[in-house]
Amino acid sequence: MSNALHLTAPEGSLLVDYVREFDVPAAELFRAHADPELFRRWIGPRGLETRIDAYDCRDGGTFRFVQRGQDGGDEYAFRGVFHTVRENELVVQTFEYEGWPDVVTLEYSRFEDLPGGRSRLTGRSVHPSPEARERYLATGMESGMAQGYDQLEELLAARAAHR
Amino acid sequence: MSNALHLTAPEGSLLVDYVREFDVPAAELFRAHADPELFRRWIGPRGLETRIDAYDCRDGGTFRFVQRGQDGGDEYAFRGVFHTVRENELVVQTFEYEGWPDVVTLEYSRFEDLPGGRSRLTGRSVHPSPEARERYLATGMESGMAQGYDQLEELLAARAAHR
Repeated sequence: MSNALHLTAPEGSLLVDYVREFDVPAAELFRAHADPELFRRWIGPRGLETRIDAYDCRDGGTFRFVQRGQDGGDEYAFRGVFHTVRENELVVQTFEYEGWPDVVTLEYSRFEDLPGGRSRLTGRSVHPSPEARERYLATGMESGMAQGYDQLEELLAARAAHR
Repeated sequence: MSNALHLTAPEGSLLVDYVREFDVPAAELFRAHADPELFRRWIGPRGLETRIDAYDCRDGGTFRFVQRGQDGGDEYAFRGVFHTVRENELVVQTFEYEGWPDVVTLEYSRFEDLPGGRSRLTGRSVHPSPEARERYLATGMESGMAQGYDQLEELLAARAAHR
């Protein structure tokens, strides 16, 4: 499998499932999700600046981040709670775009090592209604996610080159 | 509608939806969900003792409670995180039975006043897979919930009688 985002959202389901491989070990991939200073630098879509208001990536910790275009403009705020954080393995968290109040999704992110120092991220978004899922998909969620993971790969490659 | 639990779980869906009315205002119904000392006394099924390890019912708060039969025996532990708590109106939280690790559900509880000092609870459980939902339903979840709400009604009636 190439390092591309593979996303599936079967008709009539509340789920969005996705898989993405990376040329780094699972520990580095996990760290890029758990460390707010790293997370801020890759989370998509491209071209947005991300400010972290809170990011306490442990069981029961909360997060909130705000995105805006580099030319200013509208802000987009997101918040949630970490239910489970198991280092290098699993994050289960809630996720809400504050512009759609009370539309909360449950997000699973599983991290696993692959041979050759590579890793796989397997994600599942569980939406609270069919309408919520369709609305998310219609925002261009898939391309925003793909851009974010490409930025993550670039960030980790740049860090490796500086070692 | 009578004060009975009405639960729907359509085939092939990840949702369990339910409605239950109560002979008390929404503020009292909410308090019975938000106050650990009250919650402990009604949460079903009947015949179990509930111990609260944590119950911080506010945005970003966590909870954990443990149930066991009055004759001792096995313990059943549950934990989660409160994503949104809006007084007398809405709770959105995660929920996990620790015996089924990483099977996390998202729970919506909406509280609203009805005429005549009554109220309605409207709940939605969002399950992370079809298997998870079927497993929960197969435990007798519906009768356990119904027993809990009956106990809640008895508890609130007893409190009202002592005023």
